[in-house]
Amino acid sequence: MSLVIVGSIGLDTISTHAGRVIDAIGGSAVYGSISASYFTDVNIIGVVGEDYPSSAIEILKRHGICLDGLEIAPGKTFRWSGEYHDLNKAETLVTELNVFADFVPKLPESCSSCHSLLLANIHPNLQMEVLKQSSAYTHLACDTMNFWIDSCPNELAEVIAKVHIVFMNEDEVRDFTGKDDIFQAARELLKQGPKLVIVKRGEYGSVAIREDEVFFAPAYPIINVKDPTGAGDTFAGAFMACLEGHGELNSAAIRDAIRYGTVMAALNVSEFSVAGILDLDRKLIDQYKEELCQMTR
Amino acid sequence: MSLVIVGSIGLDTISTHAGRVIDAIGGSAVYGSISASYFTDVNIIGVVGEDYPSSAIEILKRHGICLDGLEIAPGKTFRWSGEYHDLNKAETLVTELNVFADFVPKLPESCSSCHSLLLANIHPNLQMEVLKQSSAYTHLACDTMNFWIDSCPNELAEVIAKVHIVFMNEDEVRDFTGKDDIFQAARELLKQGPKLVIVKRGEYGSVAIREDEVFFAPAYPIINVKDPTGAGDTFAGAFMACLEGHGELNSAAIRDAIRYGTVMAALNVSEFSVAGILDLDRKLIDQYKEELCQMTR
Repeated sequence: MSLVIVGSIGLDTISTHAGRVIDAIGGSAVYGSISASYFTDVNIIGVVGEDYPSSAIEILKRHGICLDGLEIAPGKTFRWSGEYHDLNKAETLVTELNVFADFVPKLPESCSSCHSLLLANIHPNLQMEVLKQSSAYTHLACDTMNFWIDSCPNELAEVIAKVHIVFMNEDEVRDFTGKDDIFQAARELLKQGPKLVIVKRGEYGSVAIREDEVFFAPAYPIINVKDPTGAGDTFAGAFMACLEGHGELNSAAIRDAIRYGTVMAALNVSEFSVAGILDLDRKLIDQYKEELCQMTR
Repeated sequence: MSLVIVGSIGLDTISTHAGRVIDAIGGSAVYGSISASYFTDVNIIGVVGEDYPSSAIEILKRHGICLDGLEIAPGKTFRWSGEYHDLNKAETLVTELNVFADFVPKLPESCSSCHSLLLANIHPNLQMEVLKQSSAYTHLACDTMNFWIDSCPNELAEVIAKVHIVFMNEDEVRDFTGKDDIFQAARELLKQGPKLVIVKRGEYGSVAIREDEVFFAPAYPIINVKDPTGAGDTFAGAFMACLEGHGELNSAAIRDAIRYGTVMAALNVSEFSVAGILDLDRKLIDQYKEELCQMTR
């Protein structure tokens, strides 16, 4: 069993109330892959430039992530710079696509037996490119962001029609469907193909919505949030990885996956960049998950 | 066993996206009492003017609410008029205190054997007045609002030091304590006396916080919210009434009470004024509560 995660790999410069990091490890595929690595075998698909630090490669290797799909292209690595005035919304200061501009994701041979695919936040056309290459997966999911919803809604709609699971935050699900109520919005999405919609609500946790079921998970309470970057990617990575342990997309699987996703996202935001999710003891993750269960049942 | 609820009794003129009602039944004590009436015996303490409609009295009687503490004073009933641009915040257009201006709550003889007291949202001095008259209650709670936090924080602090349970929304708990994080804010409040703080989070539900425990309850999903007025009062009324069935303020009691409070608040916001919580079948309430449990466990 293993999970493929396709997305961005980059170097982030981030300012929050808690400080500033420059050219820190980032990108949706990286957050997702490290997070998922505690639960299953992970294959990361993405591109970096020749300047990508070997220390970052080392971290991915240390987490057992298969790098067959990691392309190293001539040029500079994708860079993003953002600032958080409040912790719910990043203001993008600079985006330098660099090698990412001409990236066409290619699934390597070693991914042909993978069970699950997470199309992390990248251009819907790239997500579709991967879908065309992939064989039958048990669990197919996509994440996205407002930028794609506004700039290429039709391309995104094509991706959504093909996946089983959609991750969106409240604003995204409202923007994409035009429905103010997130439950109505999610049901609108379900009509377009997916079996499950996960609506992320930031500090308020998330809701899993499928045709005949709603499941709420609060956020794990973290007093000192330092850097929210990658919270959604971390959540989605752990979620998809946990699903693999279950096989079928049933209630028990969804509840387990959403709770592990929640815990990994909380650990992630407690430090800058990926520092909060590196080299964790699985026992600690399980303990946090059990605490989360206690806080709702 | 019975519960005393002290608060405002008024006639509300409310505009929301769903319509407008004029001189509709309102007031914190009324919402709280009707809501509580499904779970325990309730005594309402408040004042109305000679113009208070007999149909409203009839509703309270029909719900078995003891009216010994309902004072009918010469003059007009308290009136409030508000408008919701979004459903999270009312803009107050008019407040006419009328008979409420000179109100001094008096606990009638029939309340001397009551177990619980809810000091619903009124001036902290009036809340304190009731506390002076009351004998030993098993559960003592207060609700409040930003207006009192800003205008008489010291008087409110005196009340808070004497009660077991405090109901506040996120903004209120932040404003009162000066702490941005609601968990830190709640812990600050716990230091001042109470054993339990319930932080209300509107569409995101609520959190119960005590020294060694956090419990989250999502809001029951209601697609068509018509009028949020009284949601907090309805929640608090049901919460306090349910606690009575448990005696001790333990985990099981808090979880049960918060879930029933959540369900009653959801029913309340689904109609204007108190229409959503009138003449309900207890079986329906229990069914909603069971659905809410299913959505989190």
